[in-house]
Amino acid sequence: MDFFFEPKGIAVAGATPDPNAGGHHLLANLTLGYRGPIYPVNPKYDDILGMKCYSRVSEIDGTLDLVLIFVPARAVPQVLEDCVAKGVRGAIIQSGGFAEVGPEGKALQDRCLAIARGGALRLWGPNCMGFIDTWKRHVFSFITTEGWKDVFQPGEVSLIVQSGLLSAGFIIALMSNRTVGLAKVCSIGNKCDVEETELLGYLLQDPATKVICLYLESFVQGRRFLELAAASDKPIVVLKGGKTPSGAVAVASHTASLAGNDDLIQGALRQAGVYQADDFFEMIDMARVLGRPFAVHPSRGERAGIAVLSYSGASAIVTADHLEKRGLGLASLSASTLDCLQSLSPHWMPIQNPVDFWPAIEKHGVAATYKKAIKALHEDPQVDGLIVHLFSGLPAWSIDVARIVPDLNPPLKPILFWTLGERRHVEETRRSLEELGWPVFDEIQRMVRVMACLFESRPKTGRPSWMDPDLTPPVPDITRSLDALALQADRRPEKILDEHESKKWLSALGLKVVRETLIQNLEQALKAADETGYPVALKGRVEGKAHKTEAGLVKLNLWTPDQLTSAYHEMSTLPARPRSFLVQPMLRGELELIVGITRDPQFGAAVMLGLGGVWTEVYRDVVFRLAPLGREDVLEMVSELRGQILFKGFRGSKPVEMDVLGDWLIRLGWLALTYPQIREIDVNPLLVVDGEPVAVDATLLLR
Amino acid sequence: MDFFFEPKGIAVAGATPDPNAGGHHLLANLTLGYRGPIYPVNPKYDDILGMKCYSRVSEIDGTLDLVLIFVPARAVPQVLEDCVAKGVRGAIIQSGGFAEVGPEGKALQDRCLAIARGGALRLWGPNCMGFIDTWKRHVFSFITTEGWKDVFQPGEVSLIVQSGLLSAGFIIALMSNRTVGLAKVCSIGNKCDVEETELLGYLLQDPATKVICLYLESFVQGRRFLELAAASDKPIVVLKGGKTPSGAVAVASHTASLAGNDDLIQGALRQAGVYQADDFFEMIDMARVLGRPFAVHPSRGERAGIAVLSYSGASAIVTADHLEKRGLGLASLSASTLDCLQSLSPHWMPIQNPVDFWPAIEKHGVAATYKKAIKALHEDPQVDGLIVHLFSGLPAWSIDVARIVPDLNPPLKPILFWTLGERRHVEETRRSLEELGWPVFDEIQRMVRVMACLFESRPKTGRPSWMDPDLTPPVPDITRSLDALALQADRRPEKILDEHESKKWLSALGLKVVRETLIQNLEQALKAADETGYPVALKGRVEGKAHKTEAGLVKLNLWTPDQLTSAYHEMSTLPARPRSFLVQPMLRGELELIVGITRDPQFGAAVMLGLGGVWTEVYRDVVFRLAPLGREDVLEMVSELRGQILFKGFRGSKPVEMDVLGDWLIRLGWLALTYPQIREIDVNPLLVVDGEPVAVDATLLLR
Repeated sequence: MDFFFEPKGIAVAGATPDPNAGGHHLLANLTLGYRGPIYPVNPKYDDILGMKCYSRVSEIDGTLDLVLIFVPARAVPQVLEDCVAKGVRGAIIQSGGFAEVGPEGKALQDRCLAIARGGALRLWGPNCMGFIDTWKRHVFSFITTEGWKDVFQPGEVSLIVQSGLLSAGFIIALMSNRTVGLAKVCSIGNKCDVEETELLGYLLQDPATKVICLYLESFVQGRRFLELAAASDKPIVVLKGGKTPSGAVAVASHTASLAGNDDLIQGALRQAGVYQADDFFEMIDMARVLGRPFAVHPSRGERAGIAVLSYSGASAIVTADHLEKRGLGLASLSASTLDCLQSLSPHWMPIQNPVDFWPAIEKHGVAATYKKAIKALHEDPQVDGLIVHLFSGLPAWSIDVARIVPDLNPPLKPILFWTLGERRHVEETRRSLEELGWPVFDEIQRMVRVMACLFESRPKTGRPSWMDPDLTPPVPDITRSLDALALQADRRPEKILDEHESKKWLSALGLKVVRETLIQNLEQALKAADETGYPVALKGRVEGKAHKTEAGLVKLNLWTPDQLTSAYHEMSTLPARPRSFLVQPMLRGELELIVGITRDPQFGAAVMLGLGGVWTEVYRDVVFRLAPLGREDVLEMVSELRGQILFKGFRGSKPVEMDVLGDWLIRLGWLALTYPQIREIDVNPLLVVDGEPVAVDATLLLR
Repeated sequence: MDFFFEPKGIAVAGATPDPNAGGHHLLANLTLGYRGPIYPVNPKYDDILGMKCYSRVSEIDGTLDLVLIFVPARAVPQVLEDCVAKGVRGAIIQSGGFAEVGPEGKALQDRCLAIARGGALRLWGPNCMGFIDTWKRHVFSFITTEGWKDVFQPGEVSLIVQSGLLSAGFIIALMSNRTVGLAKVCSIGNKCDVEETELLGYLLQDPATKVICLYLESFVQGRRFLELAAASDKPIVVLKGGKTPSGAVAVASHTASLAGNDDLIQGALRQAGVYQADDFFEMIDMARVLGRPFAVHPSRGERAGIAVLSYSGASAIVTADHLEKRGLGLASLSASTLDCLQSLSPHWMPIQNPVDFWPAIEKHGVAATYKKAIKALHEDPQVDGLIVHLFSGLPAWSIDVARIVPDLNPPLKPILFWTLGERRHVEETRRSLEELGWPVFDEIQRMVRVMACLFESRPKTGRPSWMDPDLTPPVPDITRSLDALALQADRRPEKILDEHESKKWLSALGLKVVRETLIQNLEQALKAADETGYPVALKGRVEGKAHKTEAGLVKLNLWTPDQLTSAYHEMSTLPARPRSFLVQPMLRGELELIVGITRDPQFGAAVMLGLGGVWTEVYRDVVFRLAPLGREDVLEMVSELRGQILFKGFRGSKPVEMDVLGDWLIRLGWLALTYPQIREIDVNPLLVVDGEPVAVDATLLLR
């Protein structure tokens, strides 16, 4: 894609001398830093800004890789045809009026794409702000030159933004506030051809880019995106717009309904080690810290211990509150650190973490105390990260803040600064610290949010390939019976299998299901219960019925033949009279789980694990991973559940056998990838009996 | 307390001509706006800043209400003695070195308080930044004059801050950023005498104050504070520092452990209609919007419908995501609003909420379109609140933003603005909108957080008095048997009553408990089970044992005499051999609740309601209210549980009888207030059987 990023020759279709027009800005922006030949194109003019103007792209006689297009939508196809004729490699269509405006626009966009594909032309956009490279001062964008020219702050963070107008405002805001140094900014708009995954691949190879931020509303190649992310060491932060469940699509399985629009995507991104932000500036705050050379060494599952150095008890307390909320702990300082800090602080102020250092500052001044304290805390093996509070604008603090930071290059641990005080002093403090590479924050909760994201576990290696998964059966010789079930399923009209049929698939996978007897009449029921042992459950089988409990088709805890008999009679007189019944023993489990598979239009087959029972929908304590899963995915899934403690044996019960639970999730994932005719599966409840998961009920939906 | 706020004559003890000293700033700050007599006090000087200097407070011969003290801690008692001798009314001790530095300092502070109480002297502080009144330009604080003099922005928000240094930085930050207009700022430090509740009472009467923000780490008069808050119409926002559970105190009941340090306080504050913030600037963002004359009319329990007017699909989507997360909805716009908006937007852009108005802006310009759209959305009866996105720094937006807001005075609904773009333009946009009274935000999530807080239900009337509750028994003639139980309890050595003894209290309250038979041997057990009907539970009674299940003292679901017999034998051979046993029927409930009472050192007796079962500790879905409770408290408690839907009859089960649940919570509250010998009660589980709550197990802890 170098012809987009480092083109040899650029034409501007729609160039104009009108200083208020986008076509003018496009041209003027090129003159800021682009060193190759520039060709204005507009039949109305002979020259613009002193450059020879061409009436058509096809008339240009020099080297030409890239055309920037800012003509009305209806005129774009002709420009593209000229591009193809001229053998141009790339076109960035910045005009709007395409798919974003409805079916007519979509048709026009499709026509453009067809023209491009007729040649070797790649399209970027339409409806976008184009591209910026701050290091090379390449601004291939129609946004007003005034917005850029004084505020270039080259840096290490690259952006990919799926949006037209917002990207402009956002980038101008970032640049004018000098919030972060940017490397490359790609506004991809309707992404009719070039899309986020291809650009991600490019930026992952780009030496100028250390961190990548993306605002996306959809993923064109979901699995490829994750595969690239998982294989890379560069931090990737995604802000996914459109988390609200649509509610419009009726879903038949719990698994699909619990996936909502976002829970599944969240799991998939986490699986690939992608960081997730909730707002625009939050995304950037995460990126600017993830890009620092902080070494983070948290053992998985352990709480990171943070030290807080403050001048104020109140801000220290509020910081500790936010650390707790975000799952971080206060480090227990080593004896030598305590000694060092205490030697600076008056005897009446016993040192603990958070460190209230005001008395020390009053005694020895800010520079001397903070420098020593930061050094000691940074070196303390008990400390995983450090938060430092600064005051801006009191006379005691009128020092060069750079003097308070010891020489730590590179720092062994993350150190984040928070400052409060007089506006201009805050600004100075921020500038001088950030020039030294130390991130500064205005708000405690944001700082702690970012600190927490540094300690999220980001396993990046040993992942299965999401593009070409190894589909060896998890158990030899299980495909034969599954193939038979699949054949049978393809032939049947109903799309919702009842629990008896559904559990056949699970049994065929080698997974344990509750023992059950299929019966047709009361006599058989009583006999089955006798053999099974009371108490039993009686369930009525009605074609295509997913919600049996609400329909009165489930009677649990039947302890006597009498109870079974009356349950049988009751069920037999229901309007939806069951064809047949199931008699099952009542299992007593210590934990109710729910597992299942569903399919996401962008990411494909996914496996869910969650806490089951009546509260599943209430607390939504569920987690998703894309198939195929590895053993480490299973451990991670459990560790991300709020109810993870219940898996470890709660109040004297046996812990869940993680190997067996792993078999469940891994095999379900394999099943989803191997048998595309399965749409969704719910196993609910998956009861844990003496540590072993057993499927009590299940529903399989076919496509 | 007028002698603090509008003193007739002020002395400054510790005044000095050294321009870098706090004692100089104190004096200089007084000259900014204070119009009464000022008396510098310092034996070393004859005059300071052209004012006659006194060697001691007692030598001052003019009118003198207030002394500001900034001398070393050890010299403070002498100054206070002089104050008492002179008949001074108030002293603000701004020096540090008191209780905050340990036991010695605490003793010094106590001595100061004793001196003051020996006269009619009130103390403010020590270890504080004093007081500011921006309208009168009264700055009774040692903070450097430079920090204040150009940035006074009088306004309607008053602050009470329990912290020394932080308050300085925070106030300077607010003033220099012009974030909010302030009325009065009170930094109360160690609050040895004057504390938050007394000041809250003063500010609630203060005509200049419309909203009150407090940063507090503790409440000196918790109940009085809430009573004042509940009776007032002025919004009160509290940032409570120190939410982290201490973990140090071992607690015996679930209720106390679930209260943590913060859940109970959260419930108590909500009960009094107090808003709660998590960070300093968040508190101010809430206050500046709560102070606007927005009329909010949400029906309780209904989701407020918000309209979003944007120029960008991406920011509109992210806003909708945050609305959903905060429990707000997107308004369904009325037909007339849709017509109006559509008439401005091209036909190919169908209008819906969020409104993407960029095509309309391109057609007609920002001013014309936004003004009409804001008016239409504001008037739409389907819209409860409005969010408007602005762009700062594109040529199309180079207009006086005031022109985009129609004349809405007072506005019928909240309208919040979010803007993004070039730094200086953003600043201009903010200034001009905020001068017109329209709140502007930088971040979408903060804006939505504040919008949500406007729609939190804040019942302010009809509350029982927390100071002098009406302790009429909830049922006539129940006190006799309770008195008997109390007498018995006072005589017994053990502090933990077993479930049989504990449930006697509940029965005496007229609350339903599970039927149970006390038995001594197997024969009695079998007889009791026969009478009760199988299945039964067998529980062993061991003195002072709180966690019976873990000790093997609970056997559930015994269906046959055989099972009962072996359970009996098993329990009889335990090391802690039970004295006696309980036989209970196994109840089948549709919902497990937990209720209880606990006592908070700051707020006193509180009642808890939560979802029970093994997940109670995992999800902590519990809510607290202070006793006494009213019926409306009970409804609110249920509505604040994440699992509230389970109370309404879930999957065909009967809804919980709210009247009976109300009896439970109200009577438990009354019990806690009436019988102080009770420390805590756990009713766990409180099983809901056919809609009716029944106590299955309970533990009562005595003090």
